[in-house]
Amino acid sequence: MKMGIAGLGRMGANMARRLQRGGVEVVAWNRSADVTRELAAETGLTAVASLAQLVEALPSPRVVWLMLPAGEITEATIAHLLPLLNPDDLLVEGANSYYKDSMRRAAMLQQAGIQFVDAGVSGGIWGLDNGYALMLGGSNKAFELVEPAVRVLAPGPQTGWLHCGPAGSGHFVKMIHNGIEYGMMQAYAEGFALMKARADFDLDLGAIAEMWRHGSVVRSWLLDLTADFLAADQQLEGVAPVVADSGEGRWTALEAVEQGVPAPVMSLALMMRYASQGSGDYSAKLLAKMRQGFGGHALADDQPS
Amino acid sequence: MKMGIAGLGRMGANMARRLQRGGVEVVAWNRSADVTRELAAETGLTAVASLAQLVEALPSPRVVWLMLPAGEITEATIAHLLPLLNPDDLLVEGANSYYKDSMRRAAMLQQAGIQFVDAGVSGGIWGLDNGYALMLGGSNKAFELVEPAVRVLAPGPQTGWLHCGPAGSGHFVKMIHNGIEYGMMQAYAEGFALMKARADFDLDLGAIAEMWRHGSVVRSWLLDLTADFLAADQQLEGVAPVVADSGEGRWTALEAVEQGVPAPVMSLALMMRYASQGSGDYSAKLLAKMRQGFGGHALADDQPS
Repeated sequence: MKMGIAGLGRMGANMARRLQRGGVEVVAWNRSADVTRELAAETGLTAVASLAQLVEALPSPRVVWLMLPAGEITEATIAHLLPLLNPDDLLVEGANSYYKDSMRRAAMLQQAGIQFVDAGVSGGIWGLDNGYALMLGGSNKAFELVEPAVRVLAPGPQTGWLHCGPAGSGHFVKMIHNGIEYGMMQAYAEGFALMKARADFDLDLGAIAEMWRHGSVVRSWLLDLTADFLAADQQLEGVAPVVADSGEGRWTALEAVEQGVPAPVMSLALMMRYASQGSGDYSAKLLAKMRQGFGGHALADDQPS
Repeated sequence: MKMGIAGLGRMGANMARRLQRGGVEVVAWNRSADVTRELAAETGLTAVASLAQLVEALPSPRVVWLMLPAGEITEATIAHLLPLLNPDDLLVEGANSYYKDSMRRAAMLQQAGIQFVDAGVSGGIWGLDNGYALMLGGSNKAFELVEPAVRVLAPGPQTGWLHCGPAGSGHFVKMIHNGIEYGMMQAYAEGFALMKARADFDLDLGAIAEMWRHGSVVRSWLLDLTADFLAADQQLEGVAPVVADSGEGRWTALEAVEQGVPAPVMSLALMMRYASQGSGDYSAKLLAKMRQGFGGHALADDQPS
């Protein structure tokens, strides 16, 4: 198999490496050509300098896998690629895109006869060695074109990937995956914080995380990661208490609202990230002023230092 | 090593099996003597008919491990054992007890010179084969007496057990473990419910759970279990939508309140279990009546059938 990758960020570059190692010939384009050249020297992939060259270098029907930031860049790149592709070519969109955008893009490309697969990709920086969990949406015909690459990228030829359903369903399942991730992360974080605060027991949080990895009900890959960094430093004094959020966490909360199906823990985990970002400070100020107003509680005395 | 076990429920019986298999001689007592006799025939352990016989059958310093229901039964059994034990004997308390009870019991036993270890035990029905995660609290002297048994019960001699700190800390860490478990379970449940509700994608929830087990960020032992039962039945039509809760979930929420440390996801996961038990129905009725009151919304039309 020979296929194109557009976008060699952390994810795209490692996916290209894994594909080349697995015998898939990769033609790669990246906005910064230095990155493409370096990766070509390292892996033997074919570097090209433009999307037009990428398309020219591929056999028909072409498979072009986008690994670009979700949103405007992905949207613009699809618009750029559209006139370069022929009917029956396949565009695989691997960003963390909103599944409704993927449904819209699939319908738009279909009008030109171009096939579309949305690919939710999980595995982060560990995917190069462990493989990527891949959640794919699209027609059977479209999926079959990219299936050989999927089997190489996944943790195993038969494991860790799924053709979930029609276009959009891959990014939908990835969105839910990340929503679950938000809830799990928050649960662990709360538990370790309660143990940290119980100073009289003088608990070794790194040792507890390590112990839980074996035989406990809460063992997980996220716990493995947590055990690793707590073993190195459990005070975390140099870490700012600010947690970023990304699209999927927000979209999962929107999905719950639109469906009318309760997902309070996922949504609350998102809200706690917002609070960590400082956007809950104004409501805390309001509460302090209300307490002052009805109870005469002084602001300075009541606030933690 | 030769030790006693009092209580041969699901957990106690399997722990006795694992100890016997691992070369620890077990003397066992159970309220129903039939159970003890059957387990003796199966495993070769020594069956006794009373707590007095249990104590008599053990060498000094004795190690007696209680695996009884937390609360009154454990409290009464400790009161019963107290005059039977000698100074330097060790009582290990393996129920899901509140850690403050364990601190109180340790102090009470210490007055008679009797040693105490609180043991949080995780692993459920899988512990027999996989080993039990063991979280232990008590003095070094007390812990060393029971350590050989701990190494047999745990998933490995060096893994899956931890002497966490002083008396009470074993049950404290187990309590936090279960609080985290509540949050993780709720996160998974919400995610699968949102996928189930998205009927247009016709997703195979069992296949998704199985796929996530490999290479995804949310892989965990709880997901392994979920994949197993979803593969057998993902409609769950015969399952009542009612989730029980147990002490640890409640105590974790209390701990957050007492410490003044936020644990909203753990606490909310507990509240969702309460709601599933029907104890939120009255507030839902009140809301329906309020909506009728200010907006004239009919009760029957507004309520789901």
